Amino acid sequence: MAALMVSAWPDWVGELRLVDHHCHSVLGAALDPERFGALLTEAPAPAPGADPFDSAVGLSVRRECAPVLDLAVHAPAAEYLARRSELGVTEVNRRLFAASGTARLLVDHGYRGDDLLGLDELASAAGAPVGEVVRLEAVAEALADTGVGAQDYPAALAEEVARRTSAESVVGCKSILAYRYGFDVDPTRPSSAEVAVATDRWLLLREREPAAGRIADPVLLRHALWCGVDAGLPVQLHTGFGDPEEDLHRANPALLAGFCRATEGTGTPIVLLHCYPYHREAAWLAHSFQHVYLDVGLASTYVGHRAAELLAEVLELAPFGKVLYSSDAFGLPELYLVAANAFRRAVHQVLGGWARDGEAAEPDVHRIAAMIAEHNSAGLYRLPVAA
Amino acid sequence: MAALMVSAWPDWVGELRLVDHHCHSVLGAALDPERFGALLTEAPAPAPGADPFDSAVGLSVRRECAPVLDLAVHAPAAEYLARRSELGVTEVNRRLFAASGTARLLVDHGYRGDDLLGLDELASAAGAPVGEVVRLEAVAEALADTGVGAQDYPAALAEEVARRTSAESVVGCKSILAYRYGFDVDPTRPSSAEVAVATDRWLLLREREPAAGRIADPVLLRHALWCGVDAGLPVQLHTGFGDPEEDLHRANPALLAGFCRATEGTGTPIVLLHCYPYHREAAWLAHSFQHVYLDVGLASTYVGHRAAELLAEVLELAPFGKVLYSSDAFGLPELYLVAANAFRRAVHQVLGGWARDGEAAEPDVHRIAAMIAEHNSAGLYRLPVAA
Amino acid sequence: MAALMVSAWPDWVGELRLVDHHCHSVLGAALDPERFGALLTEAPAPAPGADPFDSAVGLSVRRECAPVLDLAVHAPAAEYLARRSELGVTEVNRRLFAASGTARLLVDHGYRGDDLLGLDELASAAGAPVGEVVRLEAVAEALADTGVGAQDYPAALAEEVARRTSAESVVGCKSILAYRYGFDVDPTRPSSAEVAVATDRWLLLREREPAAGRIADPVLLRHALWCGVDAGLPVQLHTGFGDPEEDLHRANPALLAGFCRATEGTGTPIVLLHCYPYHREAAWLAHSFQHVYLDVGLASTYVGHRAAELLAEVLELAPFGKVLYSSDAFGLPELYLVAANAFRRAVHQVLGGWARDGEAAEPDVHRIAAMIAEHNSAGLYRLPVAA
Repeated sequence: MAALMVSAWPDWVGELRLVDHHCHSVLGAALDPERFGALLTEAPAPAPGADPFDSAVGLSVRRECAPVLDLAVHAPAAEYLARRSELGVTEVNRRLFAASGTARLLVDHGYRGDDLLGLDELASAAGAPVGEVVRLEAVAEALADTGVGAQDYPAALAEEVARRTSAESVVGCKSILAYRYGFDVDPTRPSSAEVAVATDRWLLLREREPAAGRIADPVLLRHALWCGVDAGLPVQLHTGFGDPEEDLHRANPALLAGFCRATEGTGTPIVLLHCYPYHREAAWLAHSFQHVYLDVGLASTYVGHRAAELLAEVLELAPFGKVLYSSDAFGLPELYLVAANAFRRAVHQVLGGWARDGEAAEPDVHRIAAMIAEHNSAGLYRLPVAA
Repeated sequence: MAALMVSAWPDWVGELRLVDHHCHSVLGAALDPERFGALLTEAPAPAPGADPFDSAVGLSVRRECAPVLDLAVHAPAAEYLARRSELGVTEVNRRLFAASGTARLLVDHGYRGDDLLGLDELASAAGAPVGEVVRLEAVAEALADTGVGAQDYPAALAEEVARRTSAESVVGCKSILAYRYGFDVDPTRPSSAEVAVATDRWLLLREREPAAGRIADPVLLRHALWCGVDAGLPVQLHTGFGDPEEDLHRANPALLAGFCRATEGTGTPIVLLHCYPYHREAAWLAHSFQHVYLDVGLASTYVGHRAAELLAEVLELAPFGKVLYSSDAFGLPELYLVAANAFRRAVHQVLGGWARDGEAAEPDVHRIAAMIAEHNSAGLYRLPVAA
Repeated sequence: MAALMVSAWPDWVGELRLVDHHCHSVLGAALDPERFGALLTEAPAPAPGADPFDSAVGLSVRRECAPVLDLAVHAPAAEYLARRSELGVTEVNRRLFAASGTARLLVDHGYRGDDLLGLDELASAAGAPVGEVVRLEAVAEALADTGVGAQDYPAALAEEVARRTSAESVVGCKSILAYRYGFDVDPTRPSSAEVAVATDRWLLLREREPAAGRIADPVLLRHALWCGVDAGLPVQLHTGFGDPEEDLHRANPALLAGFCRATEGTGTPIVLLHCYPYHREAAWLAHSFQHVYLDVGLASTYVGHRAAELLAEVLELAPFGKVLYSSDAFGLPELYLVAANAFRRAVHQVLGGWARDGEAAEPDVHRIAAMIAEHNSAGLYRLPVAA
């Protein structure tokens, strides 16, 4: 199907403006092949001796990115990496972002932020405005680093989250409860007494073992999450596909049904990120609860041209006004372009297929595509509307 | 693929007689747009401001039903609702049922039955005979309403279920254990002593708090379920996709493996309803246990033209003699037609595809299609055979 | 799509050399229709009155095997079984194996091995070299049968597994923890004290109740598994789809994340077998952990031409160097041919589709196909390389 090629996309696909509602920043420094390979997987590194390009995402990089660096489509990995070095990071970043057609980036800069371009630099590299998503656990750990006392910590975190989220550049919060514990927790707001006890234990542990500095107690994680709920902006949750620090099945968004019920009356939207391979279950949550949204970001970058299947699976139950676009790209500018092209191709195949098969009328298809690409996020995060 | 259109179906698809082995009745009163929208989702209502037609099932209504009401395919929602009002409920019910080609309805009338047409009225509206499925929890609650004593309740329920299921019009029972608790229960028959204690607690609670009248204690739910097993007719279980009163993951039919083992020797067939998105797991149960059957009703109504994918996933492991057709339609006559057309389209794509690809011979394909549409249910529920 | 037919496969598909890295042996005796039907399902037998050929695998046998026995494609079951008897077991075994193009078999002979051809006979029937996979639980039970004392058992099993796996013909071990208990266990090596207590209990039980001879205690199962890990050869684990002795959801490979972490530093590869319908979760494990491999054997035999969908789902996240081919065939030579053709067809559809759609370059597609068919297993099990 020639129409799968970028050059053959119809205007309504090629001209979609993408709001990438969840991503990270890119590296500004040159990378050797080994570090490049390590960024092309959610594992710490590919298996010894394995070619990191021998994966769906690796094929995607050779297909989508090589032509943007003036190489033939499917250029071999070595050739690609050599050309990448030749052009230099700044030029590679610029070209790949430009090709992605990303109109706005909402960035979680709380994970390894020091290794990456700052948000202003990212906006400049991407040629697009950048909004910020506050990572709740990073705020909690930074607060603990200030030497706050156990009695003060609970209220201080609530205040700090409120302060951070009131900044004009901030559009939402994010929780990584799935990484630090799992969704098999009591979904309700913990009591002050519980939080006080857990804080005491955590701060003591931090004094004794600096390596134990990360917030991992389920009560403290719930407290941080509810500070995010109280702040009122959309709360993103990492769910499903991620790196091996998590137990995938304990990151199943279906386990959040109780949390969805508990937050239903708060007015705070809940946004399920990634979700794969539990995206049908996540779509049921978006179908069932008025305040729940979802994406299949990260997954749709990694699965190659199966991104169309993921989108089709999500649209089985999810109301079209609840589905968002994201890349969850980290580090490599390639990942923003692969994600964007995977999304456009999926929209073309799935929604375009509806029109071709008589499943839906063409104007509806174009309208729904624009909702998912841009308008749903614009409404949810109250973003400035493009002219 | 033009063959996806109703008008292009070959005879062997168009002429399938559908036994809808699990559905509810329709509304006999006019609906304003808001109530119509609320019936087009398993959520209590669509999100504020969202168009309920912006979903796979919404597109399906505009595609399948608009032409039956003399409108253009894909007519806008407002136009559709206006035409619906103009024609009146009776005519709309009549037209949409007739277009669905449903040959027989097996109806659970125990859920909000008072809002819906009675079974005789339904048979008349649908132009098809109606059989009845007894909702076990409704029988239990009605029995509790009679003022039965705690000592008498266990045996009285068994008797009442036996009495109800011995009526000529009754073809089976149904359990909503998934809604009232979940499948994470001991699957075996509870002891008399357990049931007595739980009954005592429940009846006391009902006296004090009328709002707590619903049966929700896992021991009582198991007792009701086993009363159904003892009655000997097929026992349907709601599994998977449903409204947000349930925890989806606790409604996973895979959790019923123990119950399947416990009922294996009873001679009572077990019928897994809906199953989505756990229908591959449900198909494994139907593969593994001789007395287990399944459908993907409700789901195949809601997922639009992805119903074909659901059918294909079920037929991976399920023996063809174990798969049934149902709509699980409730309230809107549109849902019977959408379900029926989704099923025929799925059969045409999936089973027709087997013939087109040389996977199976044409006569086998037609035979298997008729098994799933009609003959499997006819055998399971011992229905009168059509001339 | 005519290209789905065997005769229309391009050379790069037809000439793939298959290393079947996990299978059992075949029956050497004639079968009546009832026993044949019972081997065409993972259930103990098909439902009474049901035609065992009315399933995806049944259609596959009529399609793939009938022509090899000189019948028309899709020949009726009765005709097929008659022709099978006429030719005799030896000739049927020879023809079906030859048609499968299997280049090497790695065989678990620890399950009902006495009913099946011995490994030398199998090699002769299959016309291919045979390697052996040691079934850990069978070794444990055989050891218990020797009258070993409880104090000696733990070390004796470790020694016996080491001895068995040091044989030149042996390429790996296999665990059926999923059948005997489930993956909801502590994944770490049990302590000597725990093993001693459990052994004592087990050996006592064996004395009293011969029927309780099977190893089923989770501590003993973990001990046996870790004996396999210590032996250093790849450890295969039955996961997902299997017969109804297991609880499917407790055989979900996602539950093995902790075991993957616990074995990460040992140097022993972990190989997830079958995985269906949890193969996307298994692929995440293979993506996340350097020492984890997987297949969708057994499932791809049973699901008919949906094997392509399974392969596509696996290749979403699994690095291409981690995916293996297997049939998991048992008893019927038909199952080796159905598995092999299902695999080739899936490769043609999925990987060939990459080339047709411009997703990947043709040489990469051929190379990746050969990795999955042969080279990944050859490297993992250190098999002799074909000329």
